[in-house]
Amino acid sequence: MDEYIERLKDGSLKLYALEKELPPAEAVRVRRAFIEGETHTALTGVGSFSIDIDRVVKANIENMIGTVQVPLGVAGPLRVKGEYADGSYYLPLATTEGALVASVNRGCSLITRAGGADVRIMRDGMTRAPVFAARDVGHAHGVAAWVDEHIEDIRRAAESTTKHGKFLDAATYVAGTSVYVRLEFDTKDAMGMNMVTIAGQKVGELIERETGARLIALSGNMCTDKKPAAINLVRGRGKTVVAGVRLTDAMIADLLKTDADTLAEANYRKNLVGSARAASLGFNAHAANVVAAMFIACGQDPAHVVEGSSAITTVDRVDGGVYVSVTLPSLPVGTVGGGTGIDTQRECLTMLGVAGGGDPPGTHAKAFAEIVAAGVLAGELSLLGALAAQHLARAHQEHGRG
Amino acid sequence: MDEYIERLKDGSLKLYALEKELPPAEAVRVRRAFIEGETHTALTGVGSFSIDIDRVVKANIENMIGTVQVPLGVAGPLRVKGEYADGSYYLPLATTEGALVASVNRGCSLITRAGGADVRIMRDGMTRAPVFAARDVGHAHGVAAWVDEHIEDIRRAAESTTKHGKFLDAATYVAGTSVYVRLEFDTKDAMGMNMVTIAGQKVGELIERETGARLIALSGNMCTDKKPAAINLVRGRGKTVVAGVRLTDAMIADLLKTDADTLAEANYRKNLVGSARAASLGFNAHAANVVAAMFIACGQDPAHVVEGSSAITTVDRVDGGVYVSVTLPSLPVGTVGGGTGIDTQRECLTMLGVAGGGDPPGTHAKAFAEIVAAGVLAGELSLLGALAAQHLARAHQEHGRG
Amino acid sequence: MDEYIERLKDGSLKLYALEKELPPAEAVRVRRAFIEGETHTALTGVGSFSIDIDRVVKANIENMIGTVQVPLGVAGPLRVKGEYADGSYYLPLATTEGALVASVNRGCSLITRAGGADVRIMRDGMTRAPVFAARDVGHAHGVAAWVDEHIEDIRRAAESTTKHGKFLDAATYVAGTSVYVRLEFDTKDAMGMNMVTIAGQKVGELIERETGARLIALSGNMCTDKKPAAINLVRGRGKTVVAGVRLTDAMIADLLKTDADTLAEANYRKNLVGSARAASLGFNAHAANVVAAMFIACGQDPAHVVEGSSAITTVDRVDGGVYVSVTLPSLPVGTVGGGTGIDTQRECLTMLGVAGGGDPPGTHAKAFAEIVAAGVLAGELSLLGALAAQHLARAHQEHGRG
Amino acid sequence: MDEYIERLKDGSLKLYALEKELPPAEAVRVRRAFIEGETHTALTGVGSFSIDIDRVVKANIENMIGTVQVPLGVAGPLRVKGEYADGSYYLPLATTEGALVASVNRGCSLITRAGGADVRIMRDGMTRAPVFAARDVGHAHGVAAWVDEHIEDIRRAAESTTKHGKFLDAATYVAGTSVYVRLEFDTKDAMGMNMVTIAGQKVGELIERETGARLIALSGNMCTDKKPAAINLVRGRGKTVVAGVRLTDAMIADLLKTDADTLAEANYRKNLVGSARAASLGFNAHAANVVAAMFIACGQDPAHVVEGSSAITTVDRVDGGVYVSVTLPSLPVGTVGGGTGIDTQRECLTMLGVAGGGDPPGTHAKAFAEIVAAGVLAGELSLLGALAAQHLARAHQEHGRG
Repeated sequence: MDEYIERLKDGSLKLYALEKELPPAEAVRVRRAFIEGETHTALTGVGSFSIDIDRVVKANIENMIGTVQVPLGVAGPLRVKGEYADGSYYLPLATTEGALVASVNRGCSLITRAGGADVRIMRDGMTRAPVFAARDVGHAHGVAAWVDEHIEDIRRAAESTTKHGKFLDAATYVAGTSVYVRLEFDTKDAMGMNMVTIAGQKVGELIERETGARLIALSGNMCTDKKPAAINLVRGRGKTVVAGVRLTDAMIADLLKTDADTLAEANYRKNLVGSARAASLGFNAHAANVVAAMFIACGQDPAHVVEGSSAITTVDRVDGGVYVSVTLPSLPVGTVGGGTGIDTQRECLTMLGVAGGGDPPGTHAKAFAEIVAAGVLAGELSLLGALAAQHLARAHQEHGRG
Repeated sequence: MDEYIERLKDGSLKLYALEKELPPAEAVRVRRAFIEGETHTALTGVGSFSIDIDRVVKANIENMIGTVQVPLGVAGPLRVKGEYADGSYYLPLATTEGALVASVNRGCSLITRAGGADVRIMRDGMTRAPVFAARDVGHAHGVAAWVDEHIEDIRRAAESTTKHGKFLDAATYVAGTSVYVRLEFDTKDAMGMNMVTIAGQKVGELIERETGARLIALSGNMCTDKKPAAINLVRGRGKTVVAGVRLTDAMIADLLKTDADTLAEANYRKNLVGSARAASLGFNAHAANVVAAMFIACGQDPAHVVEGSSAITTVDRVDGGVYVSVTLPSLPVGTVGGGTGIDTQRECLTMLGVAGGGDPPGTHAKAFAEIVAAGVLAGELSLLGALAAQHLARAHQEHGRG
Repeated sequence: MDEYIERLKDGSLKLYALEKELPPAEAVRVRRAFIEGETHTALTGVGSFSIDIDRVVKANIENMIGTVQVPLGVAGPLRVKGEYADGSYYLPLATTEGALVASVNRGCSLITRAGGADVRIMRDGMTRAPVFAARDVGHAHGVAAWVDEHIEDIRRAAESTTKHGKFLDAATYVAGTSVYVRLEFDTKDAMGMNMVTIAGQKVGELIERETGARLIALSGNMCTDKKPAAINLVRGRGKTVVAGVRLTDAMIADLLKTDADTLAEANYRKNLVGSARAASLGFNAHAANVVAAMFIACGQDPAHVVEGSSAITTVDRVDGGVYVSVTLPSLPVGTVGGGTGIDTQRECLTMLGVAGGGDPPGTHAKAFAEIVAAGVLAGELSLLGALAAQHLARAHQEHGRG
Repeated sequence: MDEYIERLKDGSLKLYALEKELPPAEAVRVRRAFIEGETHTALTGVGSFSIDIDRVVKANIENMIGTVQVPLGVAGPLRVKGEYADGSYYLPLATTEGALVASVNRGCSLITRAGGADVRIMRDGMTRAPVFAARDVGHAHGVAAWVDEHIEDIRRAAESTTKHGKFLDAATYVAGTSVYVRLEFDTKDAMGMNMVTIAGQKVGELIERETGARLIALSGNMCTDKKPAAINLVRGRGKTVVAGVRLTDAMIADLLKTDADTLAEANYRKNLVGSARAASLGFNAHAANVVAAMFIACGQDPAHVVEGSSAITTVDRVDGGVYVSVTLPSLPVGTVGGGTGIDTQRECLTMLGVAGGGDPPGTHAKAFAEIVAAGVLAGELSLLGALAAQHLARAHQEHGRG
């Protein structure tokens, strides 16, 4: 080992080149030892892992030195009544935020007691939007028109790059001389970013060749990937999912220690009016907490928490109680590829019955999306309930009823 | 073990109550076994962890069944020239997205070759904004006026709840009968959400008592926590950090295989015009990737990736090259509390020399924020460079120069 | 007259009922006299008008007391090279903001000198989005599905209400139990809000009847009318128009007293980065000034300035100069209906050759949209040029070159 | 006249130069005749005006050819209970949108019947934000720090340019190497854009001189003027005004023909959830209609409708009825300067008792802002009521109760 470390130190061996000379486990060990020396840090915990890294170093990470262990808890059982996920689930939640799992767990109990969460997927499509430079406004118009008129050519080019994905649509947007072509695919059980990027490259070259516009970047930020963008709320990206549940006055009193009006008012003043006043794209209490915890547990891309958590939470007053819902316009998820194959993450997906490709293809990713949405609903209910209960408690206290 | 599992099955023992009867490690084992049975899933990987969980089950998670292992790689060394972080760093990146570490690594090389990233913190303050219901518009105005006139009372109430935090400001916003009081604190080395929530409770009760407005919720969504909201971009939340680096034409050619104009154009059409056209709050290429990977590695709250990644990336054309920068208006980070104390996460912070509280207090969190911003800059440079190089390569090819 | 005023005073006659007893001109006179008395204000100017009010009191206003006179200036000639407007135009601008007409005029000279503005309409459709309440999430999904499957029924219902309009599309959006159906029409030369509202009523009743969802409001704010909303930027509303012009270095020096780099930098730091930092939906210098002045002159709805002015202005550096463009995603205009028939406003439309219905229908409104976009481009060029010239002048001065 | 027209035709006389050779009325007549010839349009109506144009051609417009007459109606009386406007008002509304005045009038009746609208101004300040280019991130930080430390110098420079205005604040924002300094002033009865622009120029030069940063543009779009920008919602620009009124069940039934629940539901699904789903910055029904009509009537800048109309409308359910409010965070208004001195516009301001400067200064502009907000409330109530009544009527019909 010392010899490699010497070569790393004198620069004759590059850190990323270790795998070329050593088997993965060995390379990781040498690299970790080198970093320990350079940073004067004992990396005992980081070095103590159990996942099989042969695939990991190929597909998931470079310059690996070990793993970070994120505590994993479960909430549930949660009754989900979706079109793809129909049953009771224990949600795997990887988090370091104390009280989160307990809070989601309380929401799960409430939903399950209420008969389960209705969940529906409204749209499904992963996107990539290359940007082209046209010569002038007339040319930009021509490029957009060419795309509209050659959808079948684009489909052919796109689908030639993938066995699994289905081309859905190509929408064009012009801003001056920049032309954005938002390509949309059904990527089945894959989250699909890689698939659409490869297809986008092929389509981009086709458009460049046929129209003379210059392909500036494979992603022109109208995709929009990993940024909070209204286009994703309006047109959807990944799954657009809605989950809801009806709670009776009795359930609200028993399990949330509050009442329907107080619950509705908390949502109104906080999630709707408060978010409006903050000029927010998120109208919810803490959707990101649940999305992040499930994404990390299940091998999703945690940078997708940005758009995946842009939820709207509603509390409708209905006869005898409330109807509470969450709407997630842009939830990018997959059950194959990315981090889904790593041992611990795969176990989490297996707990939900959605590991690997579904039969028919796409059903695992859809089921997972439904479960995530139901989990977000559980989180929202629990936090809103806690806020409302505190409010009610104070109100009682003040009136000598506490 | 079987006895406990029987009781869990028949409902006489609650899943979360195991720690009351068993030591943590045992409780986790029993719970995992129960979940294995319920979900017909072998949780071998999840169960195979090394972190010390005694503290974890108290502070970080409930219903723990084990851990998820997230691959950890390093990028660097990265030369950072901040006011708190000044030196060369290896960035710990926990990710499952192949090519990310390699990409950031390339950006680190480039920045380091260019002499390092200038980084400055422009603002620093963690916020919590309770919402109150006033009787009418006149009352709402009165509540806001009361707050403005009693800043010292509010400061006293707020600071009575914390040894470490310093009260900074209370800004009021009215929407009809809803009054939002955005409390801001210097939370030193803590990310500070807990601190400001506890202080907010105390202040909220004071305002309720003195003004007669009803405290509806401790968070009224104008904080804004874990939602993409313009208020955070405008007023800042957590650290407002800016990082930049000057690249010469030679560096751009050598390391990015492109040129200044092509690089600037890619940023212009993608990050600026493209994001504008998408009605986005993020004007960057993939800041969220770096923020998420460093947050998970270093025990930050990954739900904070939402606001932490709302960056603006700029490429200025300057004589003989470009000046590239990233601006992160709302980066919530800490080096104490949350997940920072877990073994593997603490090792990552130690690698950066920022584990635990700084001396003077606050300097570790600030140094960490500077390093993250420099890391984001590395990621942006690398991806923009790759897009620009592809573009340039195609341009050459077309002109028979390839 | 005194008798009527007495009755107005004692409440036995309502202000709006005067037209039932008196011819319009007389009713307006009595009403004005009454208001003069009530407010102790001489309304001599207001009462001194020349427009023919018989139609006006039926179609454009209630409780009329006279008119407000808005100063009208002209800028031009402006060379426009659109698909519908191709020629030189004098722009009618109704404004009270000193220097605006002069500024636009300068822009017109510049564009005309450069050979004219290229203009293209990328999309065209007026929208109305009723909102329905579903029973639960499953029902909401069903309502959206019903709409998708019954587009032809919806088209029939919609087109049964109009001789002129053509149904284009019905897009559904769900948020919890609320279902929004965004109906889009080609409204030809009419701006079309009335047309789509009447059609929306019919379609709304159909959907209500067939799906059992309750029609809550004919406009559910996803139209989006007269609010700044990203949905209009993304999907368009009214005309989506882009205008651009190429300027050589010589033109920039001669007419704008600046240079290409300074001009591009002003646009970059102000319209792109500045707007991004302000979390704006408008990336332009002062598009609203031109849109408002032309809208008031030409009888458009001035409340539509809100969305009509959400423009993106770009300055591309090109060999030997710049290419400058404006993109207006959501410009609602018409040449029939609304205020277009009032004498002075009709004269302004006539100046542009677009008064009344076009042949074929729709061509007048399209030509008008192209001219407005070219006018906005003129305004942007002039203001950016002035800012850049000031900057350049200061720079010269500082270096002793001034 | 013919001689001048010949010279205009052959280009030896410029259109804007007519006032140099002729008295204003004559110049306008010649120019109009020239335009009539060039555009083959009889401009009889445009030429038939009564306002005194001597001042107008100096202060309000260039290249004048006449006026556009906008029909003016009145709504009211409207009872306003503000801190500056306290009394009953007839609102002057200049519009061409049929039914608007009638609708606002109905709202006025309702508010007046309910005892009047409570109105409060929460903030007041007009802004201008020049943008500077710094050399690098460190320099940008230094420029911002210099501003923070030299507020008194900035105040002195700013106030040296104005007799009336008071400097309030200078807030700095950095994006990479761009530094935005948002200067805020109390501009008393003036809307204040000119005042802050002149002061901004002086301050800009000071900052440029002292820090070495280059002043790129006097407006860096963080002002934000005439664009829909979140910064104005968060920090306010012009007046931040809130108006509200309590309606009993009886009033709702009598005057709106609906009930409290239906009214609240319409607002909830349309103005809150619908606007959220559309990613809108406006959460209201049609605030822009009222703002535009009052702005045109009263000589305000109609391009300011963009930000002036970004309102949030709320309907709170309260015992025995509802409390309805509107919040306008960014209403730029004035009673001196701009178009306020033109005869017909001045008459409209006089009707409201707010023409010219107030005593003490600023009270007229504040009173006007309060009246506008109350007018917006009237418009919201009326339209929401109409939507709710339709819904209720359909509901009754369906259940055979109609």
